[in-house]
Order: sequence, then structure tokens, then C-alpha cells
Amino acid sequence: MILTVTLNTALDITYRVPALVPHASHRVEEVTERPGGKGLNVARVLAALGHETVVTGFVGGPSGEVLRALLAGLAPVDELVPIRGATRRTIAVADAATGDTTQLNEPGPVVSSTEWDAFLTAYGRLLDGAEAVALCGSLPPGLPVGAYAQLVRQARTAKVPVLLDTSGEALRRGIAARPDLVKPNADELAQLTGSREPLRAARDARRRGAHTVVASLGAEGLLAASPDGLWQAAPPAAVRGNPTGAGDSAVAGLLSGLVEGLDWPGRLTRAVALSAATVLAPAAGEFDREAYAKMLGSVRVSEHAH
Amino acid sequence: MILTVTLNTALDITYRVPALVPHASHRVEEVTERPGGKGLNVARVLAALGHETVVTGFVGGPSGEVLRALLAGLAPVDELVPIRGATRRTIAVADAATGDTTQLNEPGPVVSSTEWDAFLTAYGRLLDGAEAVALCGSLPPGLPVGAYAQLVRQARTAKVPVLLDTSGEALRRGIAARPDLVKPNADELAQLTGSREPLRAARDARRRGAHTVVASLGAEGLLAASPDGLWQAAPPAAVRGNPTGAGDSAVAGLLSGLVEGLDWPGRLTRAVALSAATVLAPAAGEFDREAYAKMLGSVRVSEHAH
Repeated sequence: MILTVTLNTALDITYRVPALVPHASHRVEEVTERPGGKGLNVARVLAALGHETVVTGFVGGPSGEVLRALLAGLAPVDELVPIRGATRRTIAVADAATGDTTQLNEPGPVVSSTEWDAFLTAYGRLLDGAEAVALCGSLPPGLPVGAYAQLVRQARTAKVPVLLDTSGEALRRGIAARPDLVKPNADELAQLTGSREPLRAARDARRRGAHTVVASLGAEGLLAASPDGLWQAAPPAAVRGNPTGAGDSAVAGLLSGLVEGLDWPGRLTRAVALSAATVLAPAAGEFDREAYAKMLGSVRVSEHAH
Repeated sequence: MILTVTLNTALDITYRVPALVPHASHRVEEVTERPGGKGLNVARVLAALGHETVVTGFVGGPSGEVLRALLAGLAPVDELVPIRGATRRTIAVADAATGDTTQLNEPGPVVSSTEWDAFLTAYGRLLDGAEAVALCGSLPPGLPVGAYAQLVRQARTAKVPVLLDTSGEALRRGIAARPDLVKPNADELAQLTGSREPLRAARDARRRGAHTVVASLGAEGLLAASPDGLWQAAPPAAVRGNPTGAGDSAVAGLLSGLVEGLDWPGRLTRAVALSAATVLAPAAGEFDREAYAKMLGSVRVSEHAH
């Protein structure tokens, strides 16, 4: 089983409007809701790849109930921990004509220390049966900034490979606890290291504690800096579409490849192919299976000199 | 008791953001929720004026549960009828700097014919104890376009004075059932009658079936065309602020004045004062009690020649 952790789950709401005009009134033409938060997205892709997946994190309030009801219809197993506060909503306002979206993200519920303790107990129990764990996304208000560091240490003690995908101070603190893998994008990596030169920044991130760093560089694909070497993997040509969820699909590719014992070129190929197939899918966060299968054969992986 | 009907109730959500930028991502700084829909707003103002008020209409789904929980803390009595569909949400995105808002309104739940029948039974029972009834706002999907006409006829049969505040085809059909009072704004009146000349349009609306027409003309106040005469009432000077809810406050003023037996100049004075005090209040839809008391003494009412 692969475990994904989403401490700040979200009810993702999409509103279709003809075009968003500031300070005007809009009649929403279509409303769709889906369970959201990076770890939940990763789990859906993992499940689509045939992996048994379990999701945990926090859920609460009326929006949390809706999230759980929607999740019940999907493959990942719901092991979310109930809290008093309400799960945040995110609203994506999609212009019907262009497909451009305007994003409004609520901050998330305040999590109490009692609720955090309850989570740590549940997490420990779930690690027992896990082949790998992904820690994904932002921290909700109220959690200690070192929350991810604590979860990384607990996974390492349980000998479960742990991937951390977050940003800012949560990443800085989490990386120091020596996760097996971090997957920052170019901005997150620059914020962490102060360098916009990917190779230099990835090496710096390794020195800060990450065993392996896989940086997602948009159209240029992925750059992996591991103890075994340096690789770059990219799609044969730039893909155009909706990049929402592409990073989460890359995480699912890396994690499934790890569990299946693929080597680094194999993992990176899968991650890039999934990522590109997500950009190409019409629905945000879904991946196009046919494009994925086709892309697997055409991703270019090159090894860098050390 | 005064009854207000809101067939398309709403959970009104306000998001404060620094400034709304199309196609950008925004972290919402503050989230507030309140029970919404015109009839609920009218009932709150009526209750603040000391009137026993009952609200009915439809409520359902997770957003409906939140609405009912919030309503439980307020004065109006909740006699909403449960439905299978979910109460719509409205999102007001307020720019922190300027206070300008961008409005996103969900269309509302589909109401089945069985649910409509259940409402008609409940409505009949509530009319028994009502001194007056206000029918407010848009129709949710699934209801017959003649729904308001049916409710107007039922009120007239029960000899309960009935005010209709809606727009478009629902107004056109409702007005033909001869309500005691309609309160269109200038746009709604022009849409109904084809005329932008308020006096001519109000007279036309009376010919279409309304016993009395009170048109709200923004800064110019209210114009009443009744069997007893024609009046115009306006604040002493234009008021600046947030006009959200000003029309609903005017309805509450007219309805409370009717129940208390005020004459037309008295009712119009109250409606204009409440409306202006709503524009002046810092929170959308609330009215400033001090401004209201002061304004009551300074509203100018003039009688037109027939």
C-alpha cells in the first residue's frame, strides 16, 4: 500500500462563467466539486496506475463531509482524521471561452494540538502497512512549522521511504529531517536555495538533507540529483494544455516507480510521461491514458556527468 | 406575524482578497458566511424593527445545513421546506483596498414537483397566521415560471396582503395574478414595461395587475403609484456606500408600514430611510440604526398630481 498525507485537504470547486470581469456580477453556468489537496490528487493517479493507496490528513466541517462523500466513490481508501474546523474550499473560476482560470484559495482550518496528536497516532499505525509515503502540500494554520520534519523522522524510523512535496518554511524544515526524496518546482527550489540555476540548486538541496532531489522544470521536464547520479528527463516536445495537477502526477510516477523497483531513468520516464499526459487531459488533474502510453516510449532521459 | 418567501435561498459567502486579478491565484484572507436570499434579508430587517417574522422557501444539501445553522442564531423563525438538491452558494469577492466586490452566483437546486407540492401545503398553513407576505427573488430551476402567480392567488384567497419582489418572466407572470404591491427597480420596471420613464412605466405595471407599484430609483428614492395617489420619496441628499440589500430594506419598510397601518407617505418615508441606512452601514445588508432614526426626520415626500 502507498500512503499519501494531505494535512490541508480541500474541497475543489470549479465555476464555469462566460468570462470573469472584476467588480461585475456573474451567473455561474456550471458547478463541479471534487476532493482536493495535493496528496489526494497523487493518490488518485497512483490508484489509476493499479496501486493500493490510502489517504490520510485532516477533514472537518460541512465541506469536509462533502469531500468524504465524493472520496467514497473513488479508489483511494479514506483514512482522514476528523477535526473540529472546516476543510478549506478552493474555487477555480474558469472562463468558458479561453479556459483560463482564476483561483481563490481559503486558508484552511486551525488544527489544535490534540488533533495533531491524534493524527500522529493514526499516521504511525498507517506507516506499518505502507511501502512508501508522500507528504504533500501546505500546512493548515495551527500546526507547528516543523510538522513535516516530525512526519519524515517517523517514516524513517519505520523504514518507509518518504517523499516530501511542499514549499517555503515547511520544506526548509522538512528537508533537514532527511527525506528520501523532495520534488520542488523551479520556484520552490529557488526559494529554498537562493539559486535559479537548477543543477546548482538541486545539489544545494541535497546538502540540506534530501537523499534525492527531483526538480520539476516545467516544459524542460525533470532533473534528478541522487546519490547514484544526475539525470534529466523531458518530453519529446513541449506539451500545451492545463498544467493543474502535473506536479502531483509526477509525484505519483516517482512513488510508483520506487515501489515497483524501477531504476532512476525508469522512474523519471514514468513521471514525465504522466505529467505530460495530465497537461494534455481536458479535465484538470486527470491524465490522458492514451497519451501516457504513447509518451512512455518517447521521453528522452540523459545522464549528466557528476 | 409577517411571512417572507425565498424560493431560491442562498448561503452568502464573502471572500476578502487584497485585489481580484483575473487568471491569477489568490489566497483568501477572510471568509464569512451568512444566510442569504432576498426574503431572508427582508426578514432580518423586519425582525430588527420588532416584527415577529417567519421565513419559508427551500433549503437542502450541505450548504443548506450551514444556512439553517446560521439562521438558528437569528430572530426570524425557520419554516424552510427541505429538498433533495443543495441550496446555492453566492460568493462575493471583496477587494480589501477598495471594497469593490465581484459576485459569483450559483444557479440553485432543481426543485421537483413533489417538493413544490410540499411547499404549497406548508405555505397555505403559514398564510393562516400571517398579517402580510413578501415573495422575494429568483425562481430556482425546475419550478413553473408561473410559481409566483400561484402564490399570489393563494395569498389573495387567504386575504393576506402580498408583496412581490422579483424580475423578468417571474415578475411578468406574477403581476398578472394581481398582487397588492410590487417593488421593481428601474431596470426591472423597464424590462417589464419597455419604458424607462418611471411614472409611465409604473402606471403600465399597475395596468398589468399590481394594485400598487413602488419603483426603487436608486439615489432618487422611491416612486409609488397606488389607487390613492402618486408619491415620490427621496433622501435629503445622495448617500454613498454599499447598495447591497438596500432594496430588501425598502421591502421591509413597506411591509412593516402596511402591517402597522401607516399611510403611503409614512410607509415610503420608512422604506427610504431604511434603504439609505443600509447603504450607509459598513457591513453589506445590515442597516445603521442611528442613521435610520436620523433619516426618518429628513426624507422628503411629495405628492404628484394624478
